[in-house]
Amino acid sequence: MPLVRIDLRRGKPAACRRAICDGIYRALRETFNVPENDRFVVVSEHDADNFVHAESYLGIAYSDDLIIVQITVSDTRTTTTKRALFARIGALLAENPGLRKENAFINLVECKTEHWSFGNGVAQYVTAAS
Amino acid sequence: MPLVRIDLRRGKPAACRRAICDGIYRALRETFNVPENDRFVVVSEHDADNFVHAESYLGIAYSDDLIIVQITVSDTRTTTTKRALFARIGALLAENPGLRKENAFINLVECKTEHWSFGNGVAQYVTAAS
Amino acid sequence: MPLVRIDLRRGKPAACRRAICDGIYRALRETFNVPENDRFVVVSEHDADNFVHAESYLGIAYSDDLIIVQITVSDTRTTTTKRALFARIGALLAENPGLRKENAFINLVECKTEHWSFGNGVAQYVTAAS
Repeated sequence: MPLVRIDLRRGKPAACRRAICDGIYRALRETFNVPENDRFVVVSEHDADNFVHAESYLGIAYSDDLIIVQITVSDTRTTTTKRALFARIGALLAENPGLRKENAFINLVECKTEHWSFGNGVAQYVTAAS
Repeated sequence: MPLVRIDLRRGKPAACRRAICDGIYRALRETFNVPENDRFVVVSEHDADNFVHAESYLGIAYSDDLIIVQITVSDTRTTTTKRALFARIGALLAENPGLRKENAFINLVECKTEHWSFGNGVAQYVTAAS
Repeated sequence: MPLVRIDLRRGKPAACRRAICDGIYRALRETFNVPENDRFVVVSEHDADNFVHAESYLGIAYSDDLIIVQITVSDTRTTTTKRALFARIGALLAENPGLRKENAFINLVECKTEHWSFGNGVAQYVTAAS
């Protein structure tokens, strides 16, 4: 169910972008209990003048490797679980592709479970009784 | 008022992308009662390694024709109406450009009616008394 | 904390796009009281057939200079403050880069303060007690 948007500077190797996608998916599986194959990720690469950020915020220093991750998910997780997701994404991306943890910016947007159609024109998460 | 983001694989003909935009607009008109000319659509085309999805999920098989549609709308519709939107988008895109219904992934993000400015620096949907 | 997405037609000079980013940041600082350096902006440029809008809506006429701005922010502002943001963005972009106020489309998406990680795998706005 999550829809993941990743924005980053143009030019990272495909293997690097793949590792980022894989790490986020694995973190969602492990912390948010996302089902297998529930994987929908859009990556947008930007030139420098279309990817604007401060050098640092809250004492966190960013480099050109900054990735901005926005994840739309159903509103069913606790604060504790959300914190676990952030930590797991940071840890997994530090392993591969070796992203500095400072460079993982993450934002969650919540929606209702009835707000998803995975195809066929049907809201799969709405029960028949709804 | 809806803001429609469509993400898909690079290389579909302009007529195909136009038909997708037209079908979604028509479905929003018919089911969400969206006013005429309330049409704001952004399409982003992606190379294969920037558009990542499973081959199938919930028994729904996707192909390279998958489109990921994210629609931001005011929070004024019922579940029944949302289901009608999903079904209508699926049906209309099956007609033109002939999209397999499995390939229409749709997600809704809701916001308040006060969250829109259609220009002029004004929140047009906020009444004077607010 | 705001995450700003700007979509527009391809080909505006870098100085123009920079002025748009600067004006929105300044408006967020002045009206939403956003902290200094809390600045994360993604700009996506589109060819004409991937940027679809009516010629006018609600009596507001759009040109090829239309910009669609979607800002994800924490849900802590009043309606009055949101109206001030819209007005300030309109005014500042009219000054520089000289955007017609009709061409500034703005949408807000709200999230919880716990939905942000600015790096390091941590939800910085969650207090220790949460």
